[in-house]
Amino acid sequence: MLVTDLINVRYLSGFSGSNGALLVFADDREAILATDGRYRTQAAAQAPDLEVAIERAVGRYLAGQAADAGVSRLGLESNVVTVDGFDTLTNEVGEHGGKTELVRAAGTVEALREIKDAGEVALLRLACEAADAALKDLVTRGGLRPGRTEREVSRELEGLMLDHGADAISFETIVAAGPNSAIPHHRPTDAVLADGDFVKIDFGALVAGYHSDMTRTFVLGNAADWQLEIYQLVAESQRAGREALRPGADLREVDGAARQVIADAGYAEQFSHGLGHGVGLQIHEAPGIGATSSGTLLAGSVVTVEPGVYLPGRGGVRIEDTLVVGDQPATAELLTRFPKELAILA
Amino acid sequence: MLVTDLINVRYLSGFSGSNGALLVFADDREAILATDGRYRTQAAAQAPDLEVAIERAVGRYLAGQAADAGVSRLGLESNVVTVDGFDTLTNEVGEHGGKTELVRAAGTVEALREIKDAGEVALLRLACEAADAALKDLVTRGGLRPGRTEREVSRELEGLMLDHGADAISFETIVAAGPNSAIPHHRPTDAVLADGDFVKIDFGALVAGYHSDMTRTFVLGNAADWQLEIYQLVAESQRAGREALRPGADLREVDGAARQVIADAGYAEQFSHGLGHGVGLQIHEAPGIGATSSGTLLAGSVVTVEPGVYLPGRGGVRIEDTLVVGDQPATAELLTRFPKELAILA
Repeated sequence: MLVTDLINVRYLSGFSGSNGALLVFADDREAILATDGRYRTQAAAQAPDLEVAIERAVGRYLAGQAADAGVSRLGLESNVVTVDGFDTLTNEVGEHGGKTELVRAAGTVEALREIKDAGEVALLRLACEAADAALKDLVTRGGLRPGRTEREVSRELEGLMLDHGADAISFETIVAAGPNSAIPHHRPTDAVLADGDFVKIDFGALVAGYHSDMTRTFVLGNAADWQLEIYQLVAESQRAGREALRPGADLREVDGAARQVIADAGYAEQFSHGLGHGVGLQIHEAPGIGATSSGTLLAGSVVTVEPGVYLPGRGGVRIEDTLVVGDQPATAELLTRFPKELAILA
Repeated sequence: MLVTDLINVRYLSGFSGSNGALLVFADDREAILATDGRYRTQAAAQAPDLEVAIERAVGRYLAGQAADAGVSRLGLESNVVTVDGFDTLTNEVGEHGGKTELVRAAGTVEALREIKDAGEVALLRLACEAADAALKDLVTRGGLRPGRTEREVSRELEGLMLDHGADAISFETIVAAGPNSAIPHHRPTDAVLADGDFVKIDFGALVAGYHSDMTRTFVLGNAADWQLEIYQLVAESQRAGREALRPGADLREVDGAARQVIADAGYAEQFSHGLGHGVGLQIHEAPGIGATSSGTLLAGSVVTVEPGVYLPGRGGVRIEDTLVVGDQPATAELLTRFPKELAILA
């Protein structure tokens, strides 16, 4: 199989450069990692057990190598390889004898990635701990207060994650105050936090390539009744979603467990996205947990549970954790441990 | 034509969401922008002149619309659409009558993007100004001094870019001290800056989607003769490269103008990458300026000129500017204006 997706190359080989491909044989022949000259040293260090070939056109080169090695069927990532890339690979195996058939093998490595090993969970835990510690610092030092802008809060929180060991942020931080909290994915602006606002913060840390993902929603000053109502509703829904995490669970039923709570309260239309997603070397990876998902939850997968209720023009709440699915029901391990009780910040 | 590359969708429509596609007709029929429900408000605001369709599977939906509209030939971005995506589009037009032929149209929008209009140049100028001002602040306040780590310098510089109006950083900042400066693309580590080090800084700001790109190399304390030698050499090479920027110039000749200076001094092997690249909505875009490039330089394109000499285990120098190619020889406008004379920081 020819692996050209860079995240998949990294997962299988350890090599994290920006140009690389991997040829993996079905028999005991040694895999070949190809990258260009910029990464000669890095590839040798990160993938010491692999043969490393230095070539600029990595996929094309390895397809030729596969053909030369007499491979009759070469799998490729048809969910990643472009139409033009496929033409290039077809030409290349043609020039190398033409006896190699290109076979679609979409999602093969992604499926392996869904179950995390202990080393991966350890890195995800570190990423989640950096995010937890940063949010705790932000709140403790009074970083969430009327008069600050969404952008200021976002910058401070990102800096705190780096202070707590993050290599980088995991994705663009969402800090959404007041009516902006009703926008599920809102980029921080110069909008000023005010008394009575919901402040919704969705953020994460990156550690050694692994992402964390957490959302918490606060209220500044005093909480109105409608705010208390939707906060408690989302918290209940989120608990129901977490409790539905068990190996073998139908993904739609996990989504449904959380969604039903919100629907029963009459807010079905205000929960406009899926319940969660896998997290690992990518911020969004398999499995997707939504109303139209197919498949079941696997023990050892790491997923988010993140219901929300959004009232346009008023405000919204989302509560999100990252968890490791255990091998028994109700044994999911919470990686994001920041409290979820409503914090009303005076 | 069906445009599914998100950067190209943004370029043509103004819409910057994370899910979108655009159907553009060859005649005077109005283009259709498709995106999902999360972006209903944003799409209407960013693309007020376009019909907006709300659909999750945006490419497939628009292919069906094209077929329904009687389109006989539908261009698609074969450098972007995956093999699986192509199958989906083929099935979709099949289900909508099957009279629509899918035609490869790779790089069509990318070619348009190569020439920047005045509004784009204004945004690129703002991005370069934010980077210039941040580096000036960093140096002025003594941020480059022995005892600091690469990571500390990187974080401070990134914060200063945000202070000076950047929406975000343009790419992962490179701060490479001492022997690390010999690694062309080095990620900041906890390595400590020391007297006598080269400190190479390659960084940029993002403003309204447009990227800046600049590299400067400093010396701390005292410069050794070998440092003065390769610095002057790279500076001469860089000047030669900038002076070779003229509309119609063969891209290989632009690269060659700078490369020859370094080769004449006996360091050809130590300049291991291309001379430059286009910059715009992407940090790397057309044209590539290297020894194996084909084509010519266009007036109104915005490109980098960034030769380097890297001596493994000792240190390296790169000097990089972003410039707008003028419509006459020797009229390229420098967007990155931070001085290029060797600064020896005591």
